[in-house]
Amino acid sequence: MRIAVLGTGSVGTTLAPAFARLGHEVTLGTRDPDATRAREGWSSEIPLKAYVDCADAADLVVNATNGAASLSALGMVGADALAGRVLLDVANPLDFSQGFPPTLSVKDTDSLAEGIQRAFPGTRVVKSLNIVTAQVMVDPSRVGDGSTTMFLAGDDADARSTVRELLEALGWQDVVEFEDLSAARGMEMWLPLWVRLMGRLGTADFNLKIVR
Amino acid sequence: MRIAVLGTGSVGTTLAPAFARLGHEVTLGTRDPDATRAREGWSSEIPLKAYVDCADAADLVVNATNGAASLSALGMVGADALAGRVLLDVANPLDFSQGFPPTLSVKDTDSLAEGIQRAFPGTRVVKSLNIVTAQVMVDPSRVGDGSTTMFLAGDDADARSTVRELLEALGWQDVVEFEDLSAARGMEMWLPLWVRLMGRLGTADFNLKIVR
Repeated sequence: MRIAVLGTGSVGTTLAPAFARLGHEVTLGTRDPDATRAREGWSSEIPLKAYVDCADAADLVVNATNGAASLSALGMVGADALAGRVLLDVANPLDFSQGFPPTLSVKDTDSLAEGIQRAFPGTRVVKSLNIVTAQVMVDPSRVGDGSTTMFLAGDDADARSTVRELLEALGWQDVVEFEDLSAARGMEMWLPLWVRLMGRLGTADFNLKIVR
Repeated sequence: MRIAVLGTGSVGTTLAPAFARLGHEVTLGTRDPDATRAREGWSSEIPLKAYVDCADAADLVVNATNGAASLSALGMVGADALAGRVLLDVANPLDFSQGFPPTLSVKDTDSLAEGIQRAFPGTRVVKSLNIVTAQVMVDPSRVGDGSTTMFLAGDDADARSTVRELLEALGWQDVVEFEDLSAARGMEMWLPLWVRLMGRLGTADFNLKIVR
């Protein structure tokens, strides 16, 4: 499948090559490709395109931008280019403006994923992967015996299936699916506890397992 | 130890007899003991007292009241009676006024536990047990192999030790301790995802395990 990964931070540059290794045709989207290529230490095998050019041919668009910049980045991709496409939102609405620990810029009665869905109503938004660090997103075997839980939420059943297949290809065995994008609220509100746990455990290589 | 459990809902009436079975001397606190005794189906082996009478001799006070009523209930117990005591807060700031799913009346930059600590600064507040249903609070073996995770947060080290010993006596093997009551924010913000999971899994008998 053709996947456009938006965002060239640690999440985007971890997801894009992992999707390529699975055999997908991957593009990395950024605001200004020349500026990204000029970054110290930048190297990527993945074709780099401006946001405005990268979604047209994609079967799946992945929002791996900073949560605070997501609506602006997606606006540059364009509502027309996004219309009808599946959009996997892995970002979190973390606000570091008051320092550490971050707070959430939306929560409780709303979520970043729902804000994206409202701003781009023609797009089929699915929330997933946001509950773990980038390295674990693409390699759940880094944590325990590899059987921890991943959540997935979205209103569109076909879009959820597309994302679920991608999760399973990455190695996620225990995927809990919510048939309603508003479940993204709880998935994003997990982050404050995740940040505390990272501090307490001294590592980002952890995840939760839902035990029944 | 002498434990005063405040609240005669499902949480208080589950915790109180469980603490008594561990050999503790337990009192149940309620607004109006006569009204509680007159409730249809009410039966309890645990001595029932009015809030104002129940904390004086307690080594540990447990807030098992409805989150929306907690500050008012603790106000009836009284700041003087609570001063110096360890207060285990197991409540959640769930707001059902707009229906289901509930929202959170405090979150992100504050928590119910911190609000209680501010209102009763002489009390040593510890947050724990709020992440699971009452039956699991007192019997972690109901879930999986019994080794799921419990969180504990509080500013006072001795108070944390008192609660940790109680958790271990209940059977909690994996207790992650935060040395800062503000970690209660993340513990309370777990509830929206917990509520979704209860709907998805069709049971309240589940918990998370933090896998490293």
